[in-house]
Amino acid sequence: MIVRALGLLDAFGPDRPALTLSELARHAGVPLSTAHRLVADLARCGALERDDAGRYRIGLRLWELGALAPRGQALRETALPFLEDLSRITRENVQLAVREGAEVVFVERLAGSAAVPVHTRVGGRFALTATGVGLVLLAHSPPELQDEVLAGRIERFTPFTVTDPGRLRRMLADIRRDGHSVSDRQVTDDSLSVGAPLHDARGHVVAALSLVVRHGSVDARALAPLVRTTAAGISRALSAR
Amino acid sequence: MIVRALGLLDAFGPDRPALTLSELARHAGVPLSTAHRLVADLARCGALERDDAGRYRIGLRLWELGALAPRGQALRETALPFLEDLSRITRENVQLAVREGAEVVFVERLAGSAAVPVHTRVGGRFALTATGVGLVLLAHSPPELQDEVLAGRIERFTPFTVTDPGRLRRMLADIRRDGHSVSDRQVTDDSLSVGAPLHDARGHVVAALSLVVRHGSVDARALAPLVRTTAAGISRALSAR
Repeated sequence: MIVRALGLLDAFGPDRPALTLSELARHAGVPLSTAHRLVADLARCGALERDDAGRYRIGLRLWELGALAPRGQALRETALPFLEDLSRITRENVQLAVREGAEVVFVERLAGSAAVPVHTRVGGRFALTATGVGLVLLAHSPPELQDEVLAGRIERFTPFTVTDPGRLRRMLADIRRDGHSVSDRQVTDDSLSVGAPLHDARGHVVAALSLVVRHGSVDARALAPLVRTTAAGISRALSAR
Repeated sequence: MIVRALGLLDAFGPDRPALTLSELARHAGVPLSTAHRLVADLARCGALERDDAGRYRIGLRLWELGALAPRGQALRETALPFLEDLSRITRENVQLAVREGAEVVFVERLAGSAAVPVHTRVGGRFALTATGVGLVLLAHSPPELQDEVLAGRIERFTPFTVTDPGRLRRMLADIRRDGHSVSDRQVTDDSLSVGAPLHDARGHVVAALSLVVRHGSVDARALAPLVRTTAAGISRALSAR
Protein backbone atom coordinates (compact mmCIF):
# COMPACT_ATOMS: atom_id res chain seq x y z
CA MET A 1 0.00 0.00 0.00
CA ILE A 2 2.78 2.41 0.97
CA VAL A 3 4.81 1.35 -2.05
CA ARG A 4 1.72 1.94 -4.22
CA ALA A 5 1.05 5.35 -2.68
CA LEU A 6 4.62 6.47 -3.26
CA GLY A 7 4.38 5.02 -6.78
CA LEU A 8 1.37 7.25 -7.34
CA LEU A 9 3.37 10.28 -6.20
CA ASP A 10 6.09 9.40 -8.73
CA ALA A 11 3.65 10.57 -11.41
CA PHE A 12 4.43 14.16 -10.43
CA GLY A 13 7.42 15.88 -11.97
CA PRO A 14 8.76 19.37 -12.65
CA ASP A 15 6.82 19.41 -15.94
CA ARG A 16 3.78 17.71 -14.33
CA PRO A 17 3.14 19.66 -11.09
CA ALA A 18 -0.68 19.18 -11.19
CA LEU A 19 -2.51 15.98 -12.20
CA THR A 20 -6.11 14.81 -12.28
CA LEU A 21 -7.22 11.62 -10.54
CA SER A 22 -7.40 9.72 -13.84
CA GLU A 23 -3.94 10.94 -14.90
CA LEU A 24 -2.60 9.71 -11.55
CA ALA A 25 -4.31 6.32 -11.96
CA ARG A 26 -3.02 5.94 -15.53
CA HIS A 27 0.55 6.87 -14.65
CA ALA A 28 0.66 4.51 -11.66
CA GLY A 29 -1.09 1.72 -13.60
CA VAL A 30 -3.80 1.18 -10.96
CA PRO A 31 -7.62 1.09 -11.34
CA LEU A 32 -9.42 4.40 -10.83
CA SER A 33 -11.06 3.09 -7.64
CA THR A 34 -7.70 2.21 -6.11
CA ALA A 35 -6.26 5.57 -7.12
CA HIS A 36 -9.29 7.28 -5.58
CA ARG A 37 -8.71 5.57 -2.24
CA LEU A 38 -4.93 6.24 -2.24
CA VAL A 39 -5.43 9.88 -3.20
CA ALA A 40 -8.06 10.38 -0.48
CA ASP A 41 -5.64 9.01 2.15
CA LEU A 42 -2.74 11.07 0.83
CA ALA A 43 -4.87 14.25 0.77
CA ARG A 44 -6.07 13.57 4.33
CA CYS A 45 -2.44 13.57 5.54
CA GLY A 46 -1.54 16.72 3.60
CA ALA A 47 0.75 14.76 1.26
CA LEU A 48 -1.46 15.91 -1.63
CA GLU A 49 -3.36 19.18 -2.09
CA ARG A 50 -6.29 19.79 -4.42
CA ASP A 51 -6.38 23.00 -6.48
CA ASP A 52 -9.45 25.01 -7.59
CA ALA A 53 -9.59 23.06 -10.87
CA GLY A 54 -9.81 19.75 -8.97
CA ARG A 55 -6.27 18.68 -9.87
CA TYR A 56 -3.86 17.33 -7.28
CA ARG A 57 -0.46 18.74 -6.37
CA ILE A 58 2.27 17.63 -3.94
CA GLY A 59 1.27 18.97 -0.52
CA LEU A 60 3.19 21.15 1.86
CA ARG A 61 3.33 18.27 4.40
CA LEU A 62 5.65 16.29 2.12
CA TRP A 63 7.80 19.34 1.63
CA GLU A 64 8.02 19.76 5.43
CA LEU A 65 8.98 16.10 5.90
CA GLY A 66 11.48 16.31 3.05
CA ALA A 67 13.04 19.36 4.71
CA LEU A 68 14.16 16.96 7.49
CA ALA A 69 16.18 14.73 5.13
CA PRO A 70 19.82 15.03 6.28
CA ARG A 71 21.08 14.62 2.70
CA GLY A 72 18.65 17.27 1.42
CA GLN A 73 17.72 20.27 3.49
CA ALA A 74 20.21 19.79 6.35
CA LEU A 75 23.15 19.51 3.95
CA ARG A 76 21.86 22.50 2.03
CA GLU A 77 21.50 24.65 5.18
CA THR A 78 25.07 23.95 6.25
CA ALA A 79 26.45 24.57 2.77
CA LEU A 80 24.35 27.59 1.80
CA PRO A 81 26.45 30.41 3.33
CA PHE A 82 29.55 29.02 1.57
CA LEU A 83 27.66 28.62 -1.72
CA GLU A 84 26.39 32.19 -1.44
CA ASP A 85 29.91 33.53 -0.90
CA LEU A 86 31.18 31.62 -3.94
CA SER A 87 28.21 32.77 -6.06
CA ARG A 88 28.52 36.40 -4.97
CA ILE A 89 32.27 36.57 -5.52
CA THR A 90 32.38 34.73 -8.87
CA ARG A 91 28.88 35.66 -10.17
CA GLU A 92 28.83 32.18 -11.74
CA ASN A 93 26.58 29.12 -11.18
CA VAL A 94 27.21 27.13 -8.02
CA GLN A 95 25.80 23.62 -7.64
CA LEU A 96 25.54 21.18 -4.75
CA ALA A 97 24.65 17.54 -5.37
CA VAL A 98 24.54 14.07 -3.81
CA ARG A 99 24.56 10.61 -5.34
CA GLU A 100 21.43 8.44 -5.24
CA GLY A 101 22.20 5.05 -6.80
CA ALA A 102 23.69 5.68 -10.25
CA GLU A 103 22.42 9.25 -10.52
CA VAL A 104 23.21 12.75 -9.32
CA VAL A 105 20.50 14.60 -7.36
CA PHE A 106 20.90 18.38 -7.25
CA VAL A 107 20.33 19.73 -3.74
CA GLU A 108 21.02 23.40 -4.44
CA ARG A 109 21.73 25.63 -7.37
CA LEU A 110 22.54 29.30 -7.18
CA ALA A 111 22.50 31.08 -10.50
CA GLY A 112 25.08 33.84 -10.74
CA SER A 113 23.91 37.19 -12.05
CA ALA A 114 25.99 36.90 -15.23
CA ALA A 115 26.14 33.12 -15.53
CA VAL A 116 25.90 30.66 -18.41
CA PRO A 117 22.48 28.87 -18.66
CA VAL A 118 22.46 25.40 -17.08
CA HIS A 119 20.02 22.47 -17.18
CA THR A 120 19.84 21.64 -13.51
CA ARG A 121 16.91 22.02 -11.14
CA VAL A 122 16.83 21.55 -7.35
CA GLY A 123 15.52 18.01 -6.76
CA GLY A 124 16.37 17.09 -10.36
CA ARG A 125 18.44 14.06 -11.43
CA PHE A 126 21.20 13.63 -13.95
CA ALA A 127 23.68 11.01 -15.18
CA LEU A 128 26.82 10.57 -13.04
CA THR A 129 29.12 10.49 -16.07
CA ALA A 130 28.88 14.03 -17.45
CA THR A 131 28.64 16.86 -14.90
CA GLY A 132 31.43 18.16 -12.65
CA VAL A 133 29.57 17.04 -9.51
CA GLY A 134 28.62 13.69 -11.08
CA LEU A 135 32.22 12.84 -12.00
CA VAL A 136 33.36 13.62 -8.44
CA LEU A 137 30.60 11.47 -6.93
CA LEU A 138 31.31 8.62 -9.36
CA ALA A 139 35.06 8.80 -8.67
CA HIS A 140 34.37 8.34 -4.96
CA SER A 141 31.61 5.71 -5.28
CA PRO A 142 32.10 1.97 -4.53
CA PRO A 143 34.20 0.21 -7.24
CA GLU A 144 31.25 -2.10 -8.10
CA LEU A 145 29.08 0.93 -8.93
CA GLN A 146 31.86 2.43 -11.09
CA ASP A 147 32.17 -0.90 -12.96
CA GLU A 148 28.39 -1.06 -13.44
CA VAL A 149 28.14 2.53 -14.74
CA LEU A 150 31.14 2.17 -17.07
CA ALA A 151 29.79 -1.15 -18.43
CA GLY A 152 26.34 0.36 -19.07
CA ARG A 153 25.06 2.85 -21.61
CA ILE A 154 26.85 6.20 -21.23
CA GLU A 155 24.67 9.03 -22.44
CA ARG A 156 26.05 11.60 -24.88
CA PHE A 157 24.89 15.22 -24.46
CA THR A 158 27.33 17.07 -26.74
CA PRO A 159 30.13 16.13 -29.18
CA PHE A 160 32.49 16.64 -26.20
CA THR A 161 30.79 14.19 -23.82
CA VAL A 162 33.29 11.49 -22.85
CA THR A 163 31.57 8.15 -23.44
CA ASP A 164 34.60 5.86 -23.79
CA PRO A 165 34.72 3.68 -20.62
CA GLY A 166 38.53 3.49 -20.59
CA ARG A 167 38.93 7.24 -20.90
CA LEU A 168 36.28 7.83 -18.21
CA ARG A 169 38.07 5.40 -15.88
CA ARG A 170 41.30 7.40 -16.28
CA MET A 171 39.35 10.64 -15.64
CA LEU A 172 38.02 9.17 -12.38
CA ALA A 173 41.54 8.23 -11.26
CA ASP A 174 42.71 11.78 -12.06
CA ILE A 175 39.83 13.23 -10.03
CA ARG A 176 40.80 11.16 -6.99
CA ARG A 177 44.45 12.19 -7.41
CA ASP A 178 43.84 15.91 -8.11
CA GLY A 179 40.96 16.48 -5.67
CA HIS A 180 38.78 18.04 -8.36
CA SER A 181 36.94 17.24 -11.60
CA VAL A 182 36.71 19.17 -14.87
CA SER A 183 33.70 18.63 -17.12
CA ASP A 184 34.57 20.52 -20.29
CA ARG A 185 31.47 21.07 -22.50
CA GLN A 186 30.31 17.55 -21.61
CA VAL A 187 26.74 18.65 -20.71
CA THR A 188 26.15 21.73 -22.88
CA ASP A 189 28.61 22.86 -25.51
CA ASP A 190 29.17 26.30 -23.99
CA SER A 191 29.77 25.38 -20.34
CA LEU A 192 32.63 24.08 -18.24
CA SER A 193 32.27 22.90 -14.68
CA VAL A 194 34.83 22.25 -11.96
CA GLY A 195 33.75 19.99 -9.09
CA ALA A 196 35.16 18.98 -5.70
CA PRO A 197 34.07 16.51 -3.01
CA LEU A 198 32.54 17.29 0.40
CA HIS A 199 33.58 14.99 3.25
CA ASP A 200 31.89 14.12 6.53
CA ALA A 201 33.71 13.80 9.87
CA ARG A 202 34.96 10.30 8.95
CA GLY A 203 36.35 11.39 5.60
CA HIS A 204 33.57 9.82 3.51
CA VAL A 205 32.54 11.73 0.39
CA VAL A 206 28.89 12.68 1.06
CA ALA A 207 28.26 15.32 -1.62
CA ALA A 208 29.94 17.39 -4.33
CA LEU A 209 30.14 21.06 -5.17
CA SER A 210 30.74 22.64 -8.57
CA LEU A 211 31.21 25.98 -10.23
CA VAL A 212 29.82 26.18 -13.77
CA VAL A 213 31.26 28.84 -16.07
CA ARG A 214 31.07 29.69 -19.76
CA HIS A 215 33.60 27.61 -21.71
CA GLY A 216 36.64 29.68 -22.63
CA SER A 217 35.92 32.50 -20.17
CA VAL A 218 38.18 31.26 -17.35
CA ASP A 219 41.02 28.77 -17.05
CA ALA A 220 39.74 25.62 -15.29
CA ARG A 221 43.09 25.28 -13.50
CA ALA A 222 42.52 28.70 -11.92
CA LEU A 223 39.08 27.67 -10.65
CA ALA A 224 40.09 24.41 -9.00
CA PRO A 225 41.67 25.94 -5.84
CA LEU A 226 38.58 28.16 -5.41
CA VAL A 227 36.18 25.22 -5.65
CA ARG A 228 38.37 22.99 -3.46
CA THR A 229 38.78 25.54 -0.65
CA THR A 230 35.03 26.22 -0.64
CA ALA A 231 34.38 22.45 -0.52
CA ALA A 232 36.89 22.15 2.34
CA GLY A 233 35.07 24.90 4.26
CA ILE A 234 31.74 23.14 3.88
CA SER A 235 33.33 19.82 4.89
CA ARG A 236 34.58 21.45 8.10
CA ALA A 237 31.09 22.78 8.83
CA LEU A 238 29.57 19.33 8.15
CA SER A 239 32.05 17.68 10.54
CA ALA A 240 31.28 20.24 13.25
CA ARG A 241 27.53 19.62 12.95
CA MET B 1 -1.83 2.19 6.22
CA ILE B 2 -0.73 5.37 4.42
CA VAL B 3 -2.02 7.48 7.30
CA ARG B 4 -0.09 5.24 9.71
CA ALA B 5 3.10 5.44 7.63
CA LEU B 6 2.94 9.23 7.50
CA GLY B 7 2.17 9.23 11.23
CA LEU B 8 5.38 7.27 11.75
CA LEU B 9 7.33 9.90 9.78
CA ASP B 10 5.89 12.61 12.05
CA ALA B 11 8.19 11.25 14.77
CA PHE B 12 11.10 12.97 13.00
CA GLY B 13 11.83 16.59 13.78
CA PRO B 14 14.67 19.10 13.57
CA ASP B 15 15.86 17.96 17.02
CA ARG B 16 15.15 14.28 16.19
CA PRO B 17 16.74 13.69 12.76
CA ALA B 18 17.67 10.03 13.46
CA LEU B 19 15.50 7.49 15.31
CA THR B 20 15.72 3.78 16.10
CA LEU B 21 12.93 1.38 15.19
CA SER B 22 11.68 1.24 18.78
CA GLU B 23 11.71 5.04 19.10
CA LEU B 24 9.64 5.23 15.90
CA ALA B 25 7.17 2.62 17.20
CA ARG B 26 6.86 4.36 20.57
CA HIS B 27 6.32 7.81 19.04
CA ALA B 28 3.69 6.56 16.58
CA GLY B 29 2.00 4.41 19.24
CA VAL B 30 2.10 1.22 17.14
CA PRO B 31 3.42 -2.26 18.04
CA LEU B 32 7.04 -2.95 17.15
CA SER B 33 5.99 -5.53 14.54
CA THR B 34 3.77 -2.99 12.76
CA ALA B 35 6.51 -0.36 12.88
CA HIS B 36 8.96 -2.90 11.49
CA ARG B 37 6.72 -3.59 8.51
CA LEU B 38 6.00 0.11 7.83
CA VAL B 39 9.67 1.05 8.13
CA ALA B 40 10.71 -1.76 5.75
CA ASP B 41 8.21 -0.47 3.15
CA LEU B 42 9.28 3.15 3.61
CA ALA B 43 12.98 2.22 3.36
CA ARG B 44 12.30 0.20 0.20
CA CYS B 45 10.85 3.32 -1.48
CA GLY B 46 13.69 5.56 -0.31
CA ALA B 47 11.39 7.49 2.04
CA LEU B 48 13.63 6.40 4.92
CA GLU B 49 17.40 5.80 4.98
CA ARG B 50 19.33 3.74 7.54
CA ASP B 51 22.59 5.11 8.92
CA ASP B 52 25.70 3.17 10.01
CA ALA B 53 24.40 3.02 13.61
CA GLY B 54 21.16 1.35 12.41
CA ARG B 55 19.03 4.44 13.04
CA TYR B 56 16.57 5.74 10.45
CA ARG B 57 16.54 9.15 8.82
CA ILE B 58 14.20 10.84 6.33
CA GLY B 59 15.32 9.68 2.88
CA LEU B 60 16.34 11.72 -0.12
CA ARG B 61 13.28 10.41 -2.05
CA LEU B 62 10.91 12.34 0.25
CA TRP B 63 13.04 15.43 -0.17
CA GLU B 64 12.84 15.03 -3.96
CA LEU B 65 9.03 14.62 -3.84
CA GLY B 66 8.74 17.54 -1.45
CA ALA B 67 10.76 19.67 -3.86
CA LEU B 68 7.77 19.37 -6.25
CA ALA B 69 5.30 20.97 -3.80
CA PRO B 70 4.14 24.22 -5.45
CA ARG B 71 3.78 25.92 -2.08
CA GLY B 72 7.27 24.79 -1.01
CA GLN B 73 10.10 24.52 -3.46
CA ALA B 74 8.39 26.10 -6.50
CA LEU B 75 7.39 29.19 -4.52
CA ARG B 76 10.89 29.34 -3.05
CA GLU B 77 12.58 29.10 -6.48
CA THR B 78 10.50 31.96 -7.88
CA ALA B 79 11.04 34.13 -4.80
CA LEU B 80 14.72 33.37 -4.16
CA PRO B 81 16.36 35.95 -6.47
CA PHE B 82 14.20 38.70 -4.92
CA LEU B 83 14.94 37.46 -1.38
CA GLU B 84 18.65 37.42 -2.17
CA ASP B 85 18.56 41.00 -3.44
CA LEU B 86 16.75 42.15 -0.29
CA SER B 87 19.15 40.21 1.96
CA ARG B 88 22.25 41.48 0.15
CA ILE B 89 21.13 45.11 0.15
CA THR B 90 19.83 45.25 3.73
CA ARG B 91 22.13 42.60 5.30
CA GLU B 92 19.13 41.70 7.51
CA ASN B 93 17.04 38.51 7.86
CA VAL B 94 14.56 37.80 5.08
CA GLN B 95 11.77 35.26 5.59
CA LEU B 96 9.23 33.64 3.29
CA ALA B 97 6.26 31.74 4.72
CA VAL B 98 2.90 30.19 3.87
CA ARG B 99 -0.12 29.36 6.04
CA GLU B 100 -1.01 25.74 6.79
CA GLY B 101 -4.20 25.63 8.84
CA ALA B 102 -3.70 27.88 11.86
CA GLU B 103 0.11 27.94 11.62
CA VAL B 104 2.90 29.61 9.67
CA VAL B 105 5.31 27.33 7.78
CA PHE B 106 8.65 28.94 6.88
CA VAL B 107 9.63 28.17 3.29
CA GLU B 108 12.87 30.16 3.17
CA ARG B 109 15.06 32.12 5.51
CA LEU B 110 18.13 34.05 4.49
CA ALA B 111 20.23 35.27 7.40
CA GLY B 112 21.91 38.60 6.75
CA SER B 113 25.59 38.87 7.53
CA ALA B 114 24.99 41.32 10.39
CA ALA B 115 21.49 40.29 11.38
CA VAL B 116 19.67 39.81 14.69
CA PRO B 117 19.29 36.11 15.74
CA VAL B 118 15.87 34.63 14.88
CA HIS B 119 14.07 31.43 15.89
CA THR B 120 12.88 30.27 12.50
CA ARG B 121 13.98 27.24 10.51
CA VAL B 122 13.05 26.25 6.94
CA GLY B 123 10.20 23.75 7.23
CA GLY B 124 9.51 24.94 10.80
CA ARG B 125 6.11 26.05 12.11
CA PHE B 126 5.04 28.96 14.26
CA ALA B 127 1.89 30.62 15.64
CA LEU B 128 0.08 32.94 13.20
CA THR B 129 -0.42 35.63 15.83
CA ALA B 130 3.11 36.85 16.54
CA THR B 131 5.46 37.07 13.54
CA GLY B 132 5.35 39.64 10.74
CA VAL B 133 4.57 36.93 8.16
CA GLY B 134 2.03 35.26 10.46
CA LEU B 135 0.08 38.47 11.01
CA VAL B 136 -0.09 39.08 7.24
CA LEU B 137 -1.27 35.53 6.57
CA LEU B 138 -3.85 35.71 9.39
CA ALA B 139 -5.13 39.09 8.17
CA HIS B 140 -5.79 37.56 4.74
CA SER B 141 -7.19 34.20 5.94
CA PRO B 142 -10.91 33.28 5.88
CA PRO B 143 -12.93 35.15 8.56
CA GLU B 144 -13.88 31.84 10.25
CA LEU B 145 -10.20 31.00 10.78
CA GLN B 146 -9.54 34.48 12.20
CA ASP B 147 -12.46 34.03 14.62
CA GLU B 148 -11.19 30.61 15.64
CA VAL B 149 -7.61 31.82 16.22
CA LEU B 150 -8.70 34.91 18.15
CA ALA B 151 -11.11 32.85 20.30
CA GLY B 152 -8.39 30.27 21.11
CA ARG B 153 -5.29 30.43 23.26
CA ILE B 154 -2.89 33.13 22.00
CA GLU B 155 0.67 32.30 22.93
CA ARG B 156 2.86 34.92 24.63
CA PHE B 157 6.57 34.97 23.68
CA THR B 158 7.70 38.29 25.20
CA PRO B 159 6.15 41.03 27.36
CA PHE B 160 5.38 42.79 24.04
CA THR B 161 3.42 39.94 22.44
CA VAL B 162 -0.11 41.15 21.66
CA THR B 163 -2.50 38.56 23.12
CA ASP B 164 -5.65 40.67 23.50
CA PRO B 165 -8.12 39.44 20.81
CA GLY B 166 -9.69 42.88 20.31
CA ARG B 167 -6.32 44.55 19.81
CA LEU B 168 -5.18 41.77 17.46
CA ARG B 169 -8.37 42.16 15.42
CA ARG B 170 -7.62 45.88 14.97
CA MET B 171 -4.02 45.04 13.99
CA LEU B 172 -5.33 42.67 11.29
CA ALA B 173 -7.63 45.40 9.91
CA ASP B 174 -4.66 47.81 9.83
CA ILE B 175 -2.56 45.22 7.99
CA ARG B 176 -5.23 44.83 5.28
CA ARG B 177 -5.53 48.63 4.99
CA ASP B 178 -1.79 49.44 5.05
CA GLY B 179 -0.55 46.50 2.96
CA HIS B 180 2.05 45.52 5.56
CA SER B 181 2.40 44.21 9.13
CA VAL B 182 4.70 45.26 11.95
CA SER B 183 5.58 42.76 14.66
CA ASP B 184 7.44 44.82 17.26
CA ARG B 185 9.34 42.59 19.74
CA GLN B 186 6.40 40.17 19.72
CA VAL B 187 8.58 37.07 19.11
CA THR B 188 11.92 37.98 20.71
CA ASP B 189 12.42 41.15 22.71
CA ASP B 190 15.20 42.50 20.49
CA SER B 191 13.67 42.01 17.03
CA LEU B 192 11.15 43.81 14.85
CA SER B 193 9.69 42.38 11.66
CA VAL B 194 7.83 43.98 8.79
CA GLY B 195 5.74 41.67 6.60
CA ALA B 196 3.86 41.97 3.30
CA PRO B 197 1.61 39.62 1.33
CA LEU B 198 2.44 37.80 -1.93
CA HIS B 199 -0.43 37.44 -4.41
CA ASP B 200 -1.07 34.95 -7.19
CA ALA B 201 -2.47 35.86 -10.63
CA ARG B 202 -6.01 36.05 -9.23
CA GLY B 203 -5.07 38.36 -6.37
CA HIS B 204 -5.24 35.67 -3.67
CA VAL B 205 -2.70 35.97 -0.87
CA VAL B 206 -0.60 32.79 -1.18
CA ALA B 207 2.42 33.60 1.00
CA ALA B 208 4.08 36.35 2.99
CA LEU B 209 7.52 37.93 3.07
CA SER B 210 9.21 39.69 5.99
CA LEU B 211 12.35 41.55 6.89
CA VAL B 212 13.49 41.03 10.49
CA VAL B 213 15.74 43.68 12.01
CA ARG B 214 17.09 44.51 15.46
CA HIS B 215 14.53 46.55 17.42
CA GLY B 216 15.45 50.22 17.48
CA SER B 217 18.00 49.99 14.65
CA VAL B 218 15.67 51.12 11.84
CA ASP B 219 12.31 52.86 11.64
CA ALA B 220 9.62 50.29 10.73
CA ARG B 221 7.87 52.92 8.56
CA ALA B 222 11.03 53.21 6.45
CA LEU B 223 11.14 49.43 5.90
CA ALA B 224 7.53 48.98 4.79
CA PRO B 225 7.97 50.32 1.19
CA LEU B 226 11.07 48.11 0.78
CA VAL B 227 9.25 44.97 1.90
CA ARG B 228 6.11 45.84 -0.09
CA THR B 229 7.95 46.50 -3.36
CA THR B 230 9.92 43.26 -2.98
CA ALA B 231 6.65 41.39 -2.29
CA ALA B 232 5.08 43.03 -5.37
CA GLY B 233 8.05 41.91 -7.49
CA ILE B 234 7.66 38.32 -6.35
CA SER B 235 3.89 38.48 -6.91
CA ARG B 236 4.53 39.55 -10.50
CA ALA B 237 6.91 36.64 -10.99
CA LEU B 238 4.35 34.22 -9.45
CA SER B 239 1.64 35.49 -11.79
CA ALA B 240 3.91 35.09 -14.82
CA ARG B 241 4.74 31.50 -13.86
